[in-house]
Amino acid sequence: MDDWLAGERRALSRAITAVENENREATAVLRAMQGRLGRAISVGFTGPPGAGKSTLVNAFVREQRERGRTVGVIAVDPSSPISGGAILGDRIRMTGHAGDDGVFVRSLASRGHLGGLSRSAVRVMDCMDAGGRDVIVIETVGAGQSEVEIADVADVKVVVAAPGLGDDVQAIKAGILEIADILVVNKGDHPLAVQTLRHLKTMAGMRPEGTRPAVLKTTALNGEGVAELAAAVDALGRERRHAAPMARARRLLRRAALDLASRRLSAVDSAEVERLARALTTGDATVEKAALDLLRLAMKDDR
Amino acid sequence: MDDWLAGERRALSRAITAVENENREATAVLRAMQGRLGRAISVGFTGPPGAGKSTLVNAFVREQRERGRTVGVIAVDPSSPISGGAILGDRIRMTGHAGDDGVFVRSLASRGHLGGLSRSAVRVMDCMDAGGRDVIVIETVGAGQSEVEIADVADVKVVVAAPGLGDDVQAIKAGILEIADILVVNKGDHPLAVQTLRHLKTMAGMRPEGTRPAVLKTTALNGEGVAELAAAVDALGRERRHAAPMARARRLLRRAALDLASRRLSAVDSAEVERLARALTTGDATVEKAALDLLRLAMKDDR
Repeated sequence: MDDWLAGERRALSRAITAVENENREATAVLRAMQGRLGRAISVGFTGPPGAGKSTLVNAFVREQRERGRTVGVIAVDPSSPISGGAILGDRIRMTGHAGDDGVFVRSLASRGHLGGLSRSAVRVMDCMDAGGRDVIVIETVGAGQSEVEIADVADVKVVVAAPGLGDDVQAIKAGILEIADILVVNKGDHPLAVQTLRHLKTMAGMRPEGTRPAVLKTTALNGEGVAELAAAVDALGRERRHAAPMARARRLLRRAALDLASRRLSAVDSAEVERLARALTTGDATVEKAALDLLRLAMKDDR
Repeated sequence: MDDWLAGERRALSRAITAVENENREATAVLRAMQGRLGRAISVGFTGPPGAGKSTLVNAFVREQRERGRTVGVIAVDPSSPISGGAILGDRIRMTGHAGDDGVFVRSLASRGHLGGLSRSAVRVMDCMDAGGRDVIVIETVGAGQSEVEIADVADVKVVVAAPGLGDDVQAIKAGILEIADILVVNKGDHPLAVQTLRHLKTMAGMRPEGTRPAVLKTTALNGEGVAELAAAVDALGRERRHAAPMARARRLLRRAALDLASRRLSAVDSAEVERLARALTTGDATVEKAALDLLRLAMKDDR
């Protein structure tokens, strides 16, 4: 059972499944992790489609392998269940490290329950950390709110953008810039790359001091800038990894509590909801007051 | 003060500001609305950037004006505060109805608080409804989770896609297909439009009966298919508008309760959070148990 702590792949897979599903083996797995967490550097990659994120992640993984490090990749696809599978399949095929024992890929698909994804990501990351992976990469498909939440599980957040941002600036959405530790303009050989780099540096400069992301340029296809990116990730990752497991646990806890609140709210008696909603529309209650009443109702009896 | 009920623009603006901010005038505004809600048809447009959504919304508004209807437009931009303003400005300039008194545009920007957007959208929609607008359009910039949430405030949800979806299928994300009443392939004169139409019809056919969205083709630039879109929106909108105000109030209430839960969770004593997070990492508590304990702590004293 403890083979996974020694890095055995199939055993690691099984350990991950155990904690993901909280099945009977889970407690043993979690106990075995103690004292073994906080060694790995973790990094999350997000960014709009078309930025060449997958190619960059591949180049980043290759760079880590050349440095002799083992890698765990968590591929997250919060797409609709209808379209989900195919995309993930493609990406994993694309990774190009299929024959390499030093790269362990685990994919997470949403199956309709988005909140569950960041919970799973935390658990999988802990297992990979305890299982001796030197570097853990989380890659999400898109750049929406849910992807940001998932990337946030990693110690170092990399946001990848494409040159010629102009019209696409909307792709860099709420929360994305705010969480970025490192902003990368990929496809650095594109004519607009320098201009976009400048643009992002200006945006980064508007953030309060101490929260300003580094801005880098890479060309994933030929590997340019990837070593610099790896160095920047390393510097931040080393600094943060020791505190990371507890930070991850806190985030997991918070996320689960919000999910629970959401489910409890859905279970409140509909007549009560109707009464409060009516008070809102008539102006008899403020939004805050009605919301507090509803939340109290949701927490009243312990189901 | 009641000029806004007669459709006076500046008075409507002021009424909206009052309920958005819940200031002293708000109660009077909300009271005055009673019995005047549920008349307007409301429709939300979402979809990935590049689908020509803004052009389609403009064509849709023009179609409504030609039918002699008044229109309210809620332009929502949940972008980062850094990039937000400029985009919204552009879109509003683009609407091309600036000189038309029959088109009332109100923009909502996030200013960092995403949850607040759908709350505001509900309030603004109620004001426009009571203020006599025949059709209310909500347009969001992107197609992420937060945009879906905002579009959900409308009775009829239109999701706009571009031809040649293939690689971009990831843009049709979690929740988007699920909420769509009408799927539109815009840029209908594009060589790939027919293929994408077929693809979306297949996807729509996979949804359970009774929840299958209609699939239409439009070419916003020359107006093709826009009348059909308007007819489809009308049919659903008429059916739903009477129940809509209470449905909107319920959604507003639920959203506010979740926001409140989130703030309460952030305010829980950090030593308590630490204790529960530790129990998680050691396997001494399941995620569900720890989450429930945290939520109880959050609701313990009524601040």
